[in-house]
Amino acid sequence: MRTLNVNLGSRSYPIHIGRGLIEQPQLFKPHIRGSKAVVITNETVAPLYANKLAASLSHCAQVQLHVIPDGETHKTLSTVSAIIDFLISIPCDRKTTIVALGGGVVGDIAGFASACYQRGIPYIQVPTTLLAQVDSSVGGKTGVNHPLGKNMIGAFNQPQCVICDTDTLSTLHVREFRAGMAEVIKYGLVRDSVFFDWLEDNLDQVLGADADSTAYAIEQSCRNKGQVVEDDERESGTRAILNFGHTFGHAIETHLNYSEWLHGEAVSVGMVMAANLSRKLGLLTDSESARINAILHNCGLPISPPSSMTSDNFLRNMSVDKKVENGVIRLILLDGIGSAVIKADYPMAALNATLDESVSA
Amino acid sequence: MRTLNVNLGSRSYPIHIGRGLIEQPQLFKPHIRGSKAVVITNETVAPLYANKLAASLSHCAQVQLHVIPDGETHKTLSTVSAIIDFLISIPCDRKTTIVALGGGVVGDIAGFASACYQRGIPYIQVPTTLLAQVDSSVGGKTGVNHPLGKNMIGAFNQPQCVICDTDTLSTLHVREFRAGMAEVIKYGLVRDSVFFDWLEDNLDQVLGADADSTAYAIEQSCRNKGQVVEDDERESGTRAILNFGHTFGHAIETHLNYSEWLHGEAVSVGMVMAANLSRKLGLLTDSESARINAILHNCGLPISPPSSMTSDNFLRNMSVDKKVENGVIRLILLDGIGSAVIKADYPMAALNATLDESVSA
Repeated sequence: MRTLNVNLGSRSYPIHIGRGLIEQPQLFKPHIRGSKAVVITNETVAPLYANKLAASLSHCAQVQLHVIPDGETHKTLSTVSAIIDFLISIPCDRKTTIVALGGGVVGDIAGFASACYQRGIPYIQVPTTLLAQVDSSVGGKTGVNHPLGKNMIGAFNQPQCVICDTDTLSTLHVREFRAGMAEVIKYGLVRDSVFFDWLEDNLDQVLGADADSTAYAIEQSCRNKGQVVEDDERESGTRAILNFGHTFGHAIETHLNYSEWLHGEAVSVGMVMAANLSRKLGLLTDSESARINAILHNCGLPISPPSSMTSDNFLRNMSVDKKVENGVIRLILLDGIGSAVIKADYPMAALNATLDESVSA
Repeated sequence: MRTLNVNLGSRSYPIHIGRGLIEQPQLFKPHIRGSKAVVITNETVAPLYANKLAASLSHCAQVQLHVIPDGETHKTLSTVSAIIDFLISIPCDRKTTIVALGGGVVGDIAGFASACYQRGIPYIQVPTTLLAQVDSSVGGKTGVNHPLGKNMIGAFNQPQCVICDTDTLSTLHVREFRAGMAEVIKYGLVRDSVFFDWLEDNLDQVLGADADSTAYAIEQSCRNKGQVVEDDERESGTRAILNFGHTFGHAIETHLNYSEWLHGEAVSVGMVMAANLSRKLGLLTDSESARINAILHNCGLPISPPSSMTSDNFLRNMSVDKKVENGVIRLILLDGIGSAVIKADYPMAALNATLDESVSA
């Protein structure tokens, strides 16, 4: 088992990465304060792992299970409201611990419900997708979508711990695993060129689900993410680099009404577009840009937006992004592989040219 | 103008108390970061003060107004959702400042919306009722009700500042002013016997709306509240004493579906009941208990629960209170005027006797 710590003073917590961790009660016990635990999961994950997790938790708590529908379309305030109804019906008190079992959507919803219920109760992340293990379960960003914008309603709410059981990745669809790779690659691009080089060299092993390579990739991703979060927990500055590719990507997800494409697929295209804009601005070389396209393509990820999208679709959807300040769309760009910059002063013509090229690709 | 500071490190903020403060732009300016301010108020307060406030804010921001329905029955997740719809429609970014203009309900809802929108944007409290000026606007407790429990959904979210314009109290109904007095008296009871003595001696001046006496009572209330919040911002311990009378009071409000009675009226009865239980346990003398009944009665506040309530109604509604831990209802009791204690080990028979006496009173 690999263990990292996210150091945030009184809100610090460990991330455990390894095989079979769901079945190890001693990992959960230090983080359960009261007598009750509520596992929140979805209808896809529940039959696979809910019993194993409940068996572990039953060593230290009375366990209840709440199953939500699967999918980003259910990442809404009404799903949170239904969770709160359930918590009250038990009833849960302020020492009840929520355990989020599933992918990023489950973690975001359950984490937000735990932030709001009685103004905040503890929660544990048990991510079961690559994307959730390397990204959404770490760092405390929780929330739900609004029809007009992704993650517009939420809270910063750090978990008590994150338990990444890599065995759960075996039940992922290949497409979901590959979508998670977009975020893994992102860490290399925005702050860790050594890790990016390693990924280029070891891509086949990771995609082939070699256990050691996968665990290493998850560990490096969580380490990078944890360091960024330690520097800027509430995204007042540098944390925004983790949104590399996400402003374009969110515009795609909004256009598709959070359906059809997976988050990581939208981010893949978004990273290609952000890299293209970086290249146009002279921040990135042609060869660096080509390496980015190549590794994403080699992961089986899309590198062009949906054919139904226009440049105007992008601009309109990007204008409600959370990184907009006083009407200006701030973008995360690269000035080299392994180095991100936050820009608001790019020429609009360069952005327009990037959009026009992408939608006609 | 009287100014107090609530010292919470990076979340510290001032409370200004005085006449005509809404019309002083310089009080708002230091707390407006971006280019936009959104005033959230209700249909009762809007015609009275929204224009004056907007005129002040217009010196430093573009001002938008969002009016919500009046009343505790609208303190729901769906009202928050409508506010978020409005914020997105503008659209508001992370530097937009929300300004909550109104009583406790407006402040609680607007404060929670500001906690959730884009995972948190700044807000200013401009309380216009006595209850909000002395209690709910200070300390960062925000949230909404659930049909099965008051304030079950919420966040700790400190404002940028609190501006108590005492001129706004002139448009309060007498009944609302008196309801606010319940919380003023509470501070004397739980931690400030000198202030309680002052209130007994100066009750006629305060109820007669003497400006100096009222401002002094507000200042002492905010000072007491601020000190408690500084010691225990997230209510992990001593802050719970501010809920003196509230566990019984919330049971009344739940029974009445948050209608008919004002919050302060329910708290008044709750304090009488908590004092009675304290007396039964030998913590409070008969004469202290009588002084408490007398001052509340002299404020024109109720001291017995609604005639429709039974002891079972109380027990059932109290069991979903946020102070319940592992099934035990923790109660705030008094071991003297000016001294509160948190008790979980009281004899159930004493609680039952208190309930039985109250409902037959």
